[in-house]
Amino acid sequence: MDSAVMPTVVVIGDGQLARMMHPAAIELGLEMRVLAGAEDASAAQVFGEVSLGDYTDLHDLEEAAAGADAVTFDHEHVPNEHLQRLIDANVTVEPRPGALLYAQDKLEQRTRLRAIGAPVPEFAPITSSAEARDFWDLVDGQVCLKATRGGYDGHGVWFPSSLEEFTSLTDELLFHDTPLYAERKIDFDRELSAMVARTRSGEVRAWPVVESIQDGGVCRVAIAPAPGLDATLAELCRDLAVRIAQELDVTGVLAVELFEHDGRVTVNELAMRPHNTGHWTQNGSVTSQFEQHLRAVLDWPLGATDPIAPYTVMVNTLGGDHDPELPMRQRVAEVMRRYPEAKIHLYGKDWRPGRKMGHVNVSGPDLDTVRTVAEDAAHFIVNAEWR
Amino acid sequence: MDSAVMPTVVVIGDGQLARMMHPAAIELGLEMRVLAGAEDASAAQVFGEVSLGDYTDLHDLEEAAAGADAVTFDHEHVPNEHLQRLIDANVTVEPRPGALLYAQDKLEQRTRLRAIGAPVPEFAPITSSAEARDFWDLVDGQVCLKATRGGYDGHGVWFPSSLEEFTSLTDELLFHDTPLYAERKIDFDRELSAMVARTRSGEVRAWPVVESIQDGGVCRVAIAPAPGLDATLAELCRDLAVRIAQELDVTGVLAVELFEHDGRVTVNELAMRPHNTGHWTQNGSVTSQFEQHLRAVLDWPLGATDPIAPYTVMVNTLGGDHDPELPMRQRVAEVMRRYPEAKIHLYGKDWRPGRKMGHVNVSGPDLDTVRTVAEDAAHFIVNAEWR
Repeated sequence: MDSAVMPTVVVIGDGQLARMMHPAAIELGLEMRVLAGAEDASAAQVFGEVSLGDYTDLHDLEEAAAGADAVTFDHEHVPNEHLQRLIDANVTVEPRPGALLYAQDKLEQRTRLRAIGAPVPEFAPITSSAEARDFWDLVDGQVCLKATRGGYDGHGVWFPSSLEEFTSLTDELLFHDTPLYAERKIDFDRELSAMVARTRSGEVRAWPVVESIQDGGVCRVAIAPAPGLDATLAELCRDLAVRIAQELDVTGVLAVELFEHDGRVTVNELAMRPHNTGHWTQNGSVTSQFEQHLRAVLDWPLGATDPIAPYTVMVNTLGGDHDPELPMRQRVAEVMRRYPEAKIHLYGKDWRPGRKMGHVNVSGPDLDTVRTVAEDAAHFIVNAEWR
Repeated sequence: MDSAVMPTVVVIGDGQLARMMHPAAIELGLEMRVLAGAEDASAAQVFGEVSLGDYTDLHDLEEAAAGADAVTFDHEHVPNEHLQRLIDANVTVEPRPGALLYAQDKLEQRTRLRAIGAPVPEFAPITSSAEARDFWDLVDGQVCLKATRGGYDGHGVWFPSSLEEFTSLTDELLFHDTPLYAERKIDFDRELSAMVARTRSGEVRAWPVVESIQDGGVCRVAIAPAPGLDATLAELCRDLAVRIAQELDVTGVLAVELFEHDGRVTVNELAMRPHNTGHWTQNGSVTSQFEQHLRAVLDWPLGATDPIAPYTVMVNTLGGDHDPELPMRQRVAEVMRRYPEAKIHLYGKDWRPGRKMGHVNVSGPDLDTVRTVAEDAAHFIVNAEWR
């Protein structure tokens, strides 16, 4: 082998998370290929090597994975039996199905987290309206009903406000073969996200814990570090994320979404890939989550996770109710004119209401200023008018 | 036009400078295309859109430029008459031939800089050995002889140590039709680089002035900001670079390489594109020179140029005398293990002695520490052993 040849990473999934791995790969001199469903998909637009195919098709996966030093993902929806076939053929897949299961199946995740002593809400599988009734009584009607698989960004999550609504919802979903479980609804003060990366060799590094602000189940803002977070609780969150990564044998980036309530935290969700609450690291940390993910899946030593400023705020640009007439290029220019410090990230996506089309990162010493700039900038990019 | 469609930038030239524009383009959601001489060229490896062709061929240039919102460069060697043809066909070319001339022809540059009152050494065109003799006398034998065109990284520059050497060199070069000029050799204390970016609309922003350390005419180290630089002199350097950008009607990034001597500065070279002495901005400044160049050639407002740390040091990884047996991927991993704070950049190039194959950036509060880490890291990447 030519000594200059660098590893090839293949990413399955063509969204913005895959897209944003590419700058990190270019800088490190890695070869990178994407398995994309369409030529104009967010990631496929910018990669030098694009393998077109279907991530649920074993043959397409095999073709994309050929010659890869590591195969990784920008989502959790690749069938695990296919991944196992790749692994059996000596392909390095990171993270592996044994870990991915806990990001794919929320009931498995709850069960496993409870077993390792991680804080999770009371929960139970729901396979009948009788079980629904029992659970309703158990938690005094504080019910969150979830599809065990396939939910994201608020999809697959319901908050029934009466027992009747809960049981009829349960009946309807079970009739459509949606596997369900229920958990106690947490009356939280705010949401946090503890992100770490872990290598196959076992090295783990954690970023500062961030506060995330959701809107209709979709992340809208992330503030790094979480303002006013008690130092002991922050340490506990980081330790928890590290332990989950170790116990679940996660490789790559792991996001542990948490509810903060009554001075403690409860695990909400897990994601085993770069995560929206980690986009701030692109401009706010020595090592971005995208570079870190690539290092981790290659089993390379991890980068420093120190912040480069006291605060970094990320605000998503979510598609508005309508697409403003002012072309995006002019909106971007206006924001650049007003806020030269704003870091604008766009994903090459057409407008759709509520769609994650990009985000803005702003770093600085004063949280109010930083947040105002990030919110203003994102608002203008979405609406073509100032707040 | 779909409001989401973002501008397309075409870069002529397939080296690392074009390559490093791509991460910035991906983040901003720009479309980008490269005119490359070979599919495996540094930039061609990573771009989604590659137009193969010859940058001295008008037809290839026209084909690459089709539909571009701006055409720019990673070198100064595109024939200006071709660029003028593109401009005549309403293609936006930035920077334009009228400015590029001063980066292409050093005699024109010296003449123009002297005319605007910028500090340049005494100089004269050399078209005969008689003129050489006169110039030798004029500057007491302190002669630097240069090819007016085509020199870079120390090529096309000679320091004759005797009148005889000077005249015979002159005769030989003129015999081979190399247009020449000579200037007074500056006995400098150190080299500085003042970098700015300018838009067609006239906005200019400057980065902090850096110290650059050359080895055999090739940049090896850049330290931002230049340590111990007198504040008044720093201001003068920045003002000088701004004024040169304005007077020469430069668009995009402009690097003004300077000699510091006797408490003042003299202009050494100009480059109208991202420059080796600006690589530190990738990790050390709010806006990198690559993002800034794209913004400038699109006539978008420029980004903030504040440093994100007290010091950033860049060290090039120049190909050593031999290619070590340890594969590059293992060298990279070793450096990552020892220095998690080092930002490694590789250009996808095979080993060749002295070749610019990559660089390392390190930022932090203590210059000695930062420089030691950057030098150590670069040394290991080149030599596969610690200093």
